[in-house]
Amino acid sequence: MNPLNQHHEEILRDAARQLSRSENLTNICQSQWQGEPLPSHSAVKEIITLCRALIFPGFFGDSTVTRSNITYHTGLWAGRLYTLLCEQIHAGLSMGGCNDSVDNHSDTRRSRAADKAAAFIKMLPQLRMWLNDDVKATYHGDPAATSIQEIIYCYPGLRAISAYRIAHNLYELGVPIIPRMISEHSHSETGVDIHPAAAIGRSFTIDHGTGIVVGATSIIGNNVKIYQGVTLGARSFDLDDNGNPVKGVPRHPIIGNGVVIYSNATILGRITVGDNAVIGGNIWVTTDVAPGERIIQAKANNVLRLKN
Amino acid sequence: MNPLNQHHEEILRDAARQLSRSENLTNICQSQWQGEPLPSHSAVKEIITLCRALIFPGFFGDSTVTRSNITYHTGLWAGRLYTLLCEQIHAGLSMGGCNDSVDNHSDTRRSRAADKAAAFIKMLPQLRMWLNDDVKATYHGDPAATSIQEIIYCYPGLRAISAYRIAHNLYELGVPIIPRMISEHSHSETGVDIHPAAAIGRSFTIDHGTGIVVGATSIIGNNVKIYQGVTLGARSFDLDDNGNPVKGVPRHPIIGNGVVIYSNATILGRITVGDNAVIGGNIWVTTDVAPGERIIQAKANNVLRLKN
Amino acid sequence: MNPLNQHHEEILRDAARQLSRSENLTNICQSQWQGEPLPSHSAVKEIITLCRALIFPGFFGDSTVTRSNITYHTGLWAGRLYTLLCEQIHAGLSMGGCNDSVDNHSDTRRSRAADKAAAFIKMLPQLRMWLNDDVKATYHGDPAATSIQEIIYCYPGLRAISAYRIAHNLYELGVPIIPRMISEHSHSETGVDIHPAAAIGRSFTIDHGTGIVVGATSIIGNNVKIYQGVTLGARSFDLDDNGNPVKGVPRHPIIGNGVVIYSNATILGRITVGDNAVIGGNIWVTTDVAPGERIIQAKANNVLRLKN
Amino acid sequence: MNPLNQHHEEILRDAARQLSRSENLTNICQSQWQGEPLPSHSAVKEIITLCRALIFPGFFGDSTVTRSNITYHTGLWAGRLYTLLCEQIHAGLSMGGCNDSVDNHSDTRRSRAADKAAAFIKMLPQLRMWLNDDVKATYHGDPAATSIQEIIYCYPGLRAISAYRIAHNLYELGVPIIPRMISEHSHSETGVDIHPAAAIGRSFTIDHGTGIVVGATSIIGNNVKIYQGVTLGARSFDLDDNGNPVKGVPRHPIIGNGVVIYSNATILGRITVGDNAVIGGNIWVTTDVAPGERIIQAKANNVLRLKN
Amino acid sequence: MNPLNQHHEEILRDAARQLSRSENLTNICQSQWQGEPLPSHSAVKEIITLCRALIFPGFFGDSTVTRSNITYHTGLWAGRLYTLLCEQIHAGLSMGGCNDSVDNHSDTRRSRAADKAAAFIKMLPQLRMWLNDDVKATYHGDPAATSIQEIIYCYPGLRAISAYRIAHNLYELGVPIIPRMISEHSHSETGVDIHPAAAIGRSFTIDHGTGIVVGATSIIGNNVKIYQGVTLGARSFDLDDNGNPVKGVPRHPIIGNGVVIYSNATILGRITVGDNAVIGGNIWVTTDVAPGERIIQAKANNVLRLKN
Amino acid sequence: MNPLNQHHEEILRDAARQLSRSENLTNICQSQWQGEPLPSHSAVKEIITLCRALIFPGFFGDSTVTRSNITYHTGLWAGRLYTLLCEQIHAGLSMGGCNDSVDNHSDTRRSRAADKAAAFIKMLPQLRMWLNDDVKATYHGDPAATSIQEIIYCYPGLRAISAYRIAHNLYELGVPIIPRMISEHSHSETGVDIHPAAAIGRSFTIDHGTGIVVGATSIIGNNVKIYQGVTLGARSFDLDDNGNPVKGVPRHPIIGNGVVIYSNATILGRITVGDNAVIGGNIWVTTDVAPGERIIQAKANNVLRLKN
Repeated sequence: MNPLNQHHEEILRDAARQLSRSENLTNICQSQWQGEPLPSHSAVKEIITLCRALIFPGFFGDSTVTRSNITYHTGLWAGRLYTLLCEQIHAGLSMGGCNDSVDNHSDTRRSRAADKAAAFIKMLPQLRMWLNDDVKATYHGDPAATSIQEIIYCYPGLRAISAYRIAHNLYELGVPIIPRMISEHSHSETGVDIHPAAAIGRSFTIDHGTGIVVGATSIIGNNVKIYQGVTLGARSFDLDDNGNPVKGVPRHPIIGNGVVIYSNATILGRITVGDNAVIGGNIWVTTDVAPGERIIQAKANNVLRLKN
Repeated sequence: MNPLNQHHEEILRDAARQLSRSENLTNICQSQWQGEPLPSHSAVKEIITLCRALIFPGFFGDSTVTRSNITYHTGLWAGRLYTLLCEQIHAGLSMGGCNDSVDNHSDTRRSRAADKAAAFIKMLPQLRMWLNDDVKATYHGDPAATSIQEIIYCYPGLRAISAYRIAHNLYELGVPIIPRMISEHSHSETGVDIHPAAAIGRSFTIDHGTGIVVGATSIIGNNVKIYQGVTLGARSFDLDDNGNPVKGVPRHPIIGNGVVIYSNATILGRITVGDNAVIGGNIWVTTDVAPGERIIQAKANNVLRLKN
Repeated sequence: MNPLNQHHEEILRDAARQLSRSENLTNICQSQWQGEPLPSHSAVKEIITLCRALIFPGFFGDSTVTRSNITYHTGLWAGRLYTLLCEQIHAGLSMGGCNDSVDNHSDTRRSRAADKAAAFIKMLPQLRMWLNDDVKATYHGDPAATSIQEIIYCYPGLRAISAYRIAHNLYELGVPIIPRMISEHSHSETGVDIHPAAAIGRSFTIDHGTGIVVGATSIIGNNVKIYQGVTLGARSFDLDDNGNPVKGVPRHPIIGNGVVIYSNATILGRITVGDNAVIGGNIWVTTDVAPGERIIQAKANNVLRLKN
Repeated sequence: MNPLNQHHEEILRDAARQLSRSENLTNICQSQWQGEPLPSHSAVKEIITLCRALIFPGFFGDSTVTRSNITYHTGLWAGRLYTLLCEQIHAGLSMGGCNDSVDNHSDTRRSRAADKAAAFIKMLPQLRMWLNDDVKATYHGDPAATSIQEIIYCYPGLRAISAYRIAHNLYELGVPIIPRMISEHSHSETGVDIHPAAAIGRSFTIDHGTGIVVGATSIIGNNVKIYQGVTLGARSFDLDDNGNPVKGVPRHPIIGNGVVIYSNATILGRITVGDNAVIGGNIWVTTDVAPGERIIQAKANNVLRLKN
Repeated sequence: MNPLNQHHEEILRDAARQLSRSENLTNICQSQWQGEPLPSHSAVKEIITLCRALIFPGFFGDSTVTRSNITYHTGLWAGRLYTLLCEQIHAGLSMGGCNDSVDNHSDTRRSRAADKAAAFIKMLPQLRMWLNDDVKATYHGDPAATSIQEIIYCYPGLRAISAYRIAHNLYELGVPIIPRMISEHSHSETGVDIHPAAAIGRSFTIDHGTGIVVGATSIIGNNVKIYQGVTLGARSFDLDDNGNPVKGVPRHPIIGNGVVIYSNATILGRITVGDNAVIGGNIWVTTDVAPGERIIQAKANNVLRLKN
Repeated sequence: MNPLNQHHEEILRDAARQLSRSENLTNICQSQWQGEPLPSHSAVKEIITLCRALIFPGFFGDSTVTRSNITYHTGLWAGRLYTLLCEQIHAGLSMGGCNDSVDNHSDTRRSRAADKAAAFIKMLPQLRMWLNDDVKATYHGDPAATSIQEIIYCYPGLRAISAYRIAHNLYELGVPIIPRMISEHSHSETGVDIHPAAAIGRSFTIDHGTGIVVGATSIIGNNVKIYQGVTLGARSFDLDDNGNPVKGVPRHPIIGNGVVIYSNATILGRITVGDNAVIGGNIWVTTDVAPGERIIQAKANNVLRLKN
């Protein structure tokens, strides 16, 4: 390539100087200025892959795992996961502006990070049981599924649920930022956006996972099934005296056991959808739904059919 | 990093032990226990990239292909594709629970896998012709497209259609699981979810490909155009005596030639949309549509306009 | 693996021969035949990552950047970005069928590419200011956001806006194809599809970015907020005498300052939505909206509630 | 870069055509023409690294091995080593011109390769004991060595001996070509060239390993120490009727127990150096040396000292 | 890791500042200051590997080359080799202080580099013939060699000769610096140091290649065989008026056809060793040797044998 | 590949079990059992490359360094070098059996490691000056050298000296094991083995660096030149009461200023070679040499010349 000309060289030098000047770095964490590393997207991706590999060995991560080496793989994966979690949780705890970073001493943070990492790994066997329930529920609810294995390999719904359950467990352990990074990674791979703070019961099914939003204060029971495009959202939110939204107020729906919500339905606000209710496709729901109730679109009376 | 403390070390060892114990691995394929490798997500991704590179050389895969080396690149890509397909089809045929794995002898499976791989590669030149038709149809239907090349490079619709045509051809050859892995990979990169079993004609266009679902038994004619958010879904499905869905029943729409379906329309059930019909945006269709008919939303009479 | 049998070997050789024959390569650029490299998807991905790393150091790219090395990182990133932009812009200028490739001499193209690359880098500090405004607007509008940093790390909306602003700046500099490759990459990671030619003001917010489409001739004011599933689309387009769409005609909405558009609303055609208007969820809008007007769905009068 | 000009393009095409024409490939194995892969230098390097990692965990290969994960690492390394050995031994057995490739059926070769691989791995624990003896002997013989660990980490002699013992064991199992590839790799890293067919006893020491040659039919006892530049070579060899050297005739020295051979000594032919003999530096020995005998250079009577 | 303390941070900043200050960079090329890249060690390594792969396909580089893909591999290797040679020769021509860089215009240098690269590739088929002769000569001269293939795979002598012949051809084409980088790379892998300017005939054999030095003005005939530790060196060299050595004066030996030189022999100065002469091991030769003459060490009369 | 048979699987499991059992790991450091990482060969290699890149930017490491980016590269290289040195020095301090590991507290070791790392980096500018002197001395002494740059790029002597000076500086700072790992890495790439404890003056030249040994207690003055195959060794060493060699006793030669030692000369024991002495090739020296004295081989009176 041609050598950089004088003029361009100056442009680059000026841009670099401005971009690295500290007064131009307003949103950057204070912690970073003290040399603490920030959380890393690629480390978070590896954490997700390791968790999935531990829970569904062979299906995710290294596909050469067999009966004769699974013990070794599992042991190393657990160790690697521990190391990554320690680093990333510590990085999260060290960030300015996080609600869990009161404690300013790095060694204490490091030790708390390690405790949370170990506590998370301890729950992995149970996480596998829950996810196996989700797999079975999905299999039994989809005529297109040809095998249990197809669900694990190919269903974005299962990917989204596995990422949610991982993120939710970390969230419950008081891990800052990392659970949200996990849910956004999953959102990017599947189009399903479940906030890690949401509470979701067992045997959860997402069919054609894409364009789904489940808000932070949503509560979902057991045996619930959701189709593409469903939103469990907030209707509105309160503002404080400065005009900023008040954080932490319950504002998303409560969905009972056995509920089915068809494609593109939108359920907004802190309403309750009773057990075994059915919400039809393209429905907009903002008031409580009784147990067992079925809400469907009326005859499409506002559609015009124009013959040629 | 600080050495692992005693207590955490035990937690990790216990978790690893439980996770690798065979009674805790209920959904893992039987085949895997005999040392057969499972299908691999990364190999499937490479298969898609190789197919696209062979069909649109320079646009996908290695961008340094030129007139003087295309013969060499094409030769090596074809060979690499053959190797990967042999391995992955064999892995698919060896999985427990797949509908194509009656035959238990590994050598026979290996030879059948190789036959399917070669048969697929043989069809690649025709696949290119079909995809070129899709490219042209997209170009002629979009005022924002500045060149044919922009379609190939930048349209998620074309990515989704290319993945579908690859997956469908493999599906037609009786390859298990791999076509579904391909369609899910494409779903993840584009937000378009076309089941490999669907039958789609020539000159197919997807505009703003995102949030689209095309079910397994859908049949789509030639010159069809679909916008973002469209669903070709099942209305309901039969359950067998055990309460499980009956597999293989036609349950998705039949779309005629020349049909246009605008954004977020939902077409459900084994209905027929006649040739050259037009389905307006946000429409919910569950009954047959006559050839040439145009269905649009009536005046938005259920909308309130609140002036300040 | 077993050696390739004779028959399969011939199939591969034939397929490779057909696929590399020049008469079968109808859509491939003329430029490529003269040895000019094509634009590369992986280079474009690296360009996006470098821009984000320069604008939000530590959050994207290398997470080990600290106060003591930010000057060095920034300097090298700017240099690397310049090199990649020079190559890719040149590749774009060299493609046949691009509207900016009148000039046929490679050296002139190379020098024009370098000028555009430097001009882009010069604007990066301003781009950071704009994106910081977008970050702040997002933070102040979302009760679930726990910190400014969470927005930068975890919000697909911010990813989509950053990719849009990068692509739009390149588009304004007359760079062909690359801006569209950037917007499609962003579409793939977030489900948000903003055409680089669209004009978007400051303090723009996208909540639950997924399934969003913003067309090429859209104009959006300051302080606008958009939710998932929103479409700013064209209602129809003119055909020329050959039946092809006429390019370059304004056909997408103009959105005023302070407008909020709720989830899955569809706004079509060259209409104007006045300042501070509010468009409710699932609304279909094809006519002008007055400033301050609020359009919401009427009571869901076409919904049937079926009690058990 | 500038496009390839017409003339250079033809030169490249011609050169490639000539180089790939089969009549120009006279030394290439017949087996290769049937699709059997050839042995691979990089696989052989990985085999050496895995063996050293298994024998001296932490010192070679992955340095993060600890008490809590050694079981897992060892298990995976053994499995990986088995896989690589199976492939490479099979490749060696399949090469034309090798003395162990009488059997032409690929499956039989594959099964024999697997047996040899397993047999080799079975001997690794004993190999570690032998190498620990070599380490100890080196430590006790070198005043510059500060610790046992320094020997393992830093002594090229130990590297050469470990490669020799690995190669010799494979040679004893009838593995063709691979042992020689191992010894040449070791020669390249250390400058020590020990033929895998040589027989070397326990507690062997090489000081300043460089420029050392130990021929194929050499026999070396226990507790022998060799310095840099030593050659155990052949004096001459017989030619057959065609003027080619007769293979397999013993032609290198027999070195007794406890012998020390100082730097740059050359010992040639099938002579015997008795137990505990000492060969001084720069000596040229072609006749037997009695047990306990010390051969040293006489006073340097053929040296001129020229004062200024 | 712990954050960098203030004091260490200053030390690093100061060291970096001093090391990058231009007055401290006295030996760096002028060309580099104008943005021309310097020759690259890793590119040179790849050049050697590509040449060896083209000459001995399967033995070096990618071991999966077979009859059915050799044409493709060869084509791509030749193209890649051309690209690398163009870059590296251009970098060599651009370095200050090189004897071939009179011409200061970068485009001219680039075009000359491309001509030299193409000329080199044109000679590769002949290079293969010469190297095959070297292989055969080595095989016929070594009783330990079990096959022709073992020579190609495992003999450092053959590696050294192949690197020499590559480097010498580039040297003959007037390529600066790169031939020397090749010979040093080969020196590092084998311990054989042959200057690229030396002239060596056909059927050359190096046995136990290690510790061999062949000086720049050496001339070696056909069918010559050399053992480990042999030096063909300069006896002394003239100094110019400034006390610097006069460059380019013939100062190394001329070795006739059919000569054998045994291990550790040292031959110094511009002397002539006649055809078919034999130089014994450990001999120091500084005067002409007649054709057919055999020089061997006399009885080791200056050795003391001390019995215990 | 074929699944692992039952019998082989057991062999692998048994071998892995034995190899990881702690009673079979006799030479492994105690520290390792507590989770402290061991020194890493690949990290040490990177340390050498970074030092050389800092001292001779462009010649080693990244070849794209230019005037406009050298400040950035240098800054990042220094930071990376600091990080690696901290880790590796800490690992060295933590190993059992090292003479510098009295202190058992990990934090103290970590802080000492950081101090040593910073102290080393502080000396890099001076190290560059010394190495530039070595480069110049080499250039002025070799008629084959065509430029200063050729020395830096291609002379193994310069590589060996640069590794020595790096290792020696670390040794002087009390860094355990790492200096020896550096010298062995250099030995492997060049065939030159200089102990880091040796003391070598300025303007040191090694010609045809291969097969050279410089022992731990050697002292070498300024302007010394050494040829291939030279040994500065110990004549003998004392044993303690246990029969082990006594460590730390001066036992290698002292070489004065301006001395030249020709190829394959061997100088043994704590003797003194006076200033400006010349030691001829193949000489064996075990007694003092006076200043200015020239020792050469007498006429080769023990050589037989046999005419045909």
